Amino acid sequence: MLKCAIIGATGYTGMELIKILLSHSYVRITHLTTRSKESIPVRQLLPQLPKTVNLEIKNHDYAKIAKETDLVFVCLPHTEAMKAVQQFSQAGKVVIDLSADYRLKSAADYLKAYGKKHAYPALLKKAVYGLSEWNREKVSKADIISNPGCYPTGSALGMLPLLKAGLAEGREIIIDAKSGVSGAGKKLSEATSFMGLGQNFKAYKVNQHQHAPEIKQTLSTLSGKTASLNFVPHLLPIKRGILSVIYLKATKRASLKAIKDAFKKYYQDELFVRLKPSGEFPEIQDVCGTNYCDIGFTYDSHTKRIIIITAIDNLLKGASGQAVQNMNIRFGFPESEGLV
Amino acid sequence: MLKCAIIGATGYTGMELIKILLSHSYVRITHLTTRSKESIPVRQLLPQLPKTVNLEIKNHDYAKIAKETDLVFVCLPHTEAMKAVQQFSQAGKVVIDLSADYRLKSAADYLKAYGKKHAYPALLKKAVYGLSEWNREKVSKADIISNPGCYPTGSALGMLPLLKAGLAEGREIIIDAKSGVSGAGKKLSEATSFMGLGQNFKAYKVNQHQHAPEIKQTLSTLSGKTASLNFVPHLLPIKRGILSVIYLKATKRASLKAIKDAFKKYYQDELFVRLKPSGEFPEIQDVCGTNYCDIGFTYDSHTKRIIIITAIDNLLKGASGQAVQNMNIRFGFPESEGLV
Amino acid sequence: MLKCAIIGATGYTGMELIKILLSHSYVRITHLTTRSKESIPVRQLLPQLPKTVNLEIKNHDYAKIAKETDLVFVCLPHTEAMKAVQQFSQAGKVVIDLSADYRLKSAADYLKAYGKKHAYPALLKKAVYGLSEWNREKVSKADIISNPGCYPTGSALGMLPLLKAGLAEGREIIIDAKSGVSGAGKKLSEATSFMGLGQNFKAYKVNQHQHAPEIKQTLSTLSGKTASLNFVPHLLPIKRGILSVIYLKATKRASLKAIKDAFKKYYQDELFVRLKPSGEFPEIQDVCGTNYCDIGFTYDSHTKRIIIITAIDNLLKGASGQAVQNMNIRFGFPESEGLV
Amino acid sequence: MLKCAIIGATGYTGMELIKILLSHSYVRITHLTTRSKESIPVRQLLPQLPKTVNLEIKNHDYAKIAKETDLVFVCLPHTEAMKAVQQFSQAGKVVIDLSADYRLKSAADYLKAYGKKHAYPALLKKAVYGLSEWNREKVSKADIISNPGCYPTGSALGMLPLLKAGLAEGREIIIDAKSGVSGAGKKLSEATSFMGLGQNFKAYKVNQHQHAPEIKQTLSTLSGKTASLNFVPHLLPIKRGILSVIYLKATKRASLKAIKDAFKKYYQDELFVRLKPSGEFPEIQDVCGTNYCDIGFTYDSHTKRIIIITAIDNLLKGASGQAVQNMNIRFGFPESEGLV
Repeated sequence: MLKCAIIGATGYTGMELIKILLSHSYVRITHLTTRSKESIPVRQLLPQLPKTVNLEIKNHDYAKIAKETDLVFVCLPHTEAMKAVQQFSQAGKVVIDLSADYRLKSAADYLKAYGKKHAYPALLKKAVYGLSEWNREKVSKADIISNPGCYPTGSALGMLPLLKAGLAEGREIIIDAKSGVSGAGKKLSEATSFMGLGQNFKAYKVNQHQHAPEIKQTLSTLSGKTASLNFVPHLLPIKRGILSVIYLKATKRASLKAIKDAFKKYYQDELFVRLKPSGEFPEIQDVCGTNYCDIGFTYDSHTKRIIIITAIDNLLKGASGQAVQNMNIRFGFPESEGLV
Repeated sequence: MLKCAIIGATGYTGMELIKILLSHSYVRITHLTTRSKESIPVRQLLPQLPKTVNLEIKNHDYAKIAKETDLVFVCLPHTEAMKAVQQFSQAGKVVIDLSADYRLKSAADYLKAYGKKHAYPALLKKAVYGLSEWNREKVSKADIISNPGCYPTGSALGMLPLLKAGLAEGREIIIDAKSGVSGAGKKLSEATSFMGLGQNFKAYKVNQHQHAPEIKQTLSTLSGKTASLNFVPHLLPIKRGILSVIYLKATKRASLKAIKDAFKKYYQDELFVRLKPSGEFPEIQDVCGTNYCDIGFTYDSHTKRIIIITAIDNLLKGASGQAVQNMNIRFGFPESEGLV
Repeated sequence: MLKCAIIGATGYTGMELIKILLSHSYVRITHLTTRSKESIPVRQLLPQLPKTVNLEIKNHDYAKIAKETDLVFVCLPHTEAMKAVQQFSQAGKVVIDLSADYRLKSAADYLKAYGKKHAYPALLKKAVYGLSEWNREKVSKADIISNPGCYPTGSALGMLPLLKAGLAEGREIIIDAKSGVSGAGKKLSEATSFMGLGQNFKAYKVNQHQHAPEIKQTLSTLSGKTASLNFVPHLLPIKRGILSVIYLKATKRASLKAIKDAFKKYYQDELFVRLKPSGEFPEIQDVCGTNYCDIGFTYDSHTKRIIIITAIDNLLKGASGQAVQNMNIRFGFPESEGLV
Repeated sequence: MLKCAIIGATGYTGMELIKILLSHSYVRITHLTTRSKESIPVRQLLPQLPKTVNLEIKNHDYAKIAKETDLVFVCLPHTEAMKAVQQFSQAGKVVIDLSADYRLKSAADYLKAYGKKHAYPALLKKAVYGLSEWNREKVSKADIISNPGCYPTGSALGMLPLLKAGLAEGREIIIDAKSGVSGAGKKLSEATSFMGLGQNFKAYKVNQHQHAPEIKQTLSTLSGKTASLNFVPHLLPIKRGILSVIYLKATKRASLKAIKDAFKKYYQDELFVRLKPSGEFPEIQDVCGTNYCDIGFTYDSHTKRIIIITAIDNLLKGASGQAVQNMNIRFGFPESEGLV
């Protein structure tokens, strides 16, 4: 049994990880941490769990954890995860970081996006971006896996096959994404209160979301094409799920058939990507509670636009599910273990 | 007091009209019709109305209505409104048609969009498109006012100033719109059930919605520029409101200042259009229950894209509110009477 | 025009009051106050209001307000309202207090329910409890009107006719009430967040809610019968409205006819109470946005239980609507002015 | 592997059963039936299921099913299940009936509650009522298990320990229950549409719900005390879950300690009943997606009332979860297999 710790287990991604790991056949949870002084029984946080679960979330000492565990999931907020990742990595542990701290390869980009100087630029280079379907080889050998953001996962999975196949322009990308409120984390705010969000809908951080540079970098790195984009995220009055609508400009080589073929080529053997038949599009409830990314697409030959719609559960394929998928890849477990 | 009848008063647009007209200082409701045999007390349909409202919705004879009323609102489903509009128009009544039947100027376009041959193509030419802010002059003299669709209202109000000012390309338009479920009408379906829509979100009629030709025609007619567009509507798990996110390609003359100036020029004196300050964007709850269209915008000089976001209440500015606004214009009442 | 001030205008009850008073024919808002240093334009708080509304909410001096106004609505939180009421009352102003501070006649009960000693026990005696339909005479002459709580309004209106007519036992009362989340006020909490309340439901303060003594006192004072009760409130995943289900034990004189007659006797001429026909029961959406209390009832001759269900909008009949109704009574305006 | 068929697999209870049985270690699904002519891939109905699930729901012949299966779950609507149960039972199969058709022991009660004469009154006697915790012994040997209704499960589990211990009067029971909308089944209606249910709340079938006689019978049969009750169910704007608030009159022997002891006695070793600490009460989200029944209680010595609150997932402990629990008991599998 692989021994796992979760650093920062009380947030949404930590909570989802606990649920998945408890049902995983090849791992055992050794430590769950919180920065608060008081211990929290896991079942207080997750009352749906069986009566028999007796884990506690505690203010553990990191050095002690490092001695007693094989793999560390870091679920701390960005800018706070940075140090924990460094510490466990230095202690020789495999680290899967669910924060944003090791996603951007350039320390300058990180500063701009997250407003803080990165303390470990050398580790940035070492960290492998864990978009499982596109980086499986590197993930399987990585010591630091930087788990992708929720929006970047939903967006990049929808675009990469077409960019890679040269069917869409990298410089004419529009992403109009809509996320359930768990994506905003646990912090209380008027916008995420029932009074503020119920019966309401709005865009936020229009063209200014910190995930935009991550999407750009991912597209460029994994497709080899420079990307330029507009990204408009919205908050939906639902608990979880992201629907991303992506508008691409077709290149001359594009046709509906070529687009279909590109998607098939990259995804027909993937366990966690499901292609919708022509003219059908995904909806959020089909992927909620799963690690799937559903993808539908259409091509308008008049406007030369390709429209791609993807749906994921932001907390699973967009966070903790993909983290476990990456763990499975890294440690040679069946890739879907714990996830179906 | 202007005497008004509502034909098809039991649907959502009819219900909203009743509420507005009951509080209007210069009109009196004379007839409310339903095709069902049994009469329906208005307060059964709208229990929020005061105890003192004693109107009934009945299976009235149109010829009789024509004799006893000045103005007829037609709230029938599309393809069924066509004949009623013709009948009341021939009887010399002013007609405001809230259906789609007289919106498209070309009978061929109508056939394509609504699957039925238009029986009165001559009347199509006569009907005036009631986008109040952009057609006020014609509306003030019209005998048939074709009230705009909900999506076209929210979209066109956001784009027309920029197209008119030559700041955006007419051929590179993307509209990503999200509507509350009342936009789908009263017919029961799994998609609009609480189980189907709650905690869910999806696009529908991707690039195939019947409002797309109406938007195109409106942009072309009122801005003088040929328009070409992709339109992706979605169903939100909320009752009412539409948020439209519009992506335009800037022309060379565009700048943030020029864009602001264009919006100000056309809207600063409008009672029912409100511009957000730079960098702020509308949300649905700000316009729900009102006849306002709120507009926010930004310009990305790197990608040369203008992003415009508009919010309306689909049943008010997107239907019955604008219908009353048009009535006010047509009969010389204060334009906001009954609406604020 | 009667000059009115609202003290504590930024909470939900203050916001509703502003909306009602703006459409009231006989009053003018002179001051809106907040304890925060910075002024807040009313339209920032209530974006649905017309462009033409230019009021500001400010940190006004109470002494200055007292000089420039006739009537003061106090919308401060309980324990904080106490002093403001005293101050304006001493300055000779009519005060309508929407807080709980002057509802309980006994200072001892107040201390127990709200955990603070009452500073003005003499004023407690002077304050008139503004359950409009049952205290109209006293309200019409009152200088301090203590506006009833939301739960007490919905409950007492449903029971008083039967207790008064001797058809139900005062000592066997069960109230199972369900409230929309606006009843919890604006303070952020996990329980009122979208994640905590959406798709959830629970009871709270079981048998310990501070409104229970108010209900008891109201029943005893207005019906003359001593009351004893169990009160279980719940939080509904909706924004507004209260449904109260009341279980009473019938006395020997009770019969379905006698019950009907009692309700008719007290309510058939009331503008804001609507009785449902036998076997029909109210629902929340019928009263939302109105000042109505809808009442349905049934009698089970086998168990000798009378079941009464009432529905109100907690922010209107349960707060600001009834406050305006009381103002109308006090100043001789038509009782429904501003409310229908 | 036990071979199982689900008759009527397209409704909510059938769908939940499929999900549970697919993860159960000791059973295999052999047949899934629908009355519609066309076959339905399971993954069309349940898109959250893994790509690898290839089951189809078909219009199977019952005689053929009987030959190829060991256990039959009947998930047909009441009055339609009756015949299928008889048919499979006669063929020697163990049957678990999730409909209401074999719950009431008296054919006269059945006629009254469901408006149809029972065709197999002899089988009524044979069927064992599957309230797992209270009928385990009989369930373990039963050939027809009549699975309890959702409301009766939540109510009876909350009351039986106290009735059995003689701590509460059987003739003074009030149940105020609130259910998520899946309890109403898949049939479309205005009341269960998003427009009808969103932001709304109401009681229905007040004192007339068909589950009331089932609750009465269950309490009498399993506690030995005659029961008399008032039952008021409500529809909540959530998808699943039932919260039942039960008001009992204490007998002279009752005390908070005695009540606690009674609950502990019957439930402390139960896997699927969880008692809340004193003064804490269950909420729906804690049991959603689980087979748990959470129970909280309090005692008011002044009014001599015991208030019990229970929460279950109506589709799991209230239907398919308990059905699997009963299967596990009947076939000697670990009782929680497939359920935690």
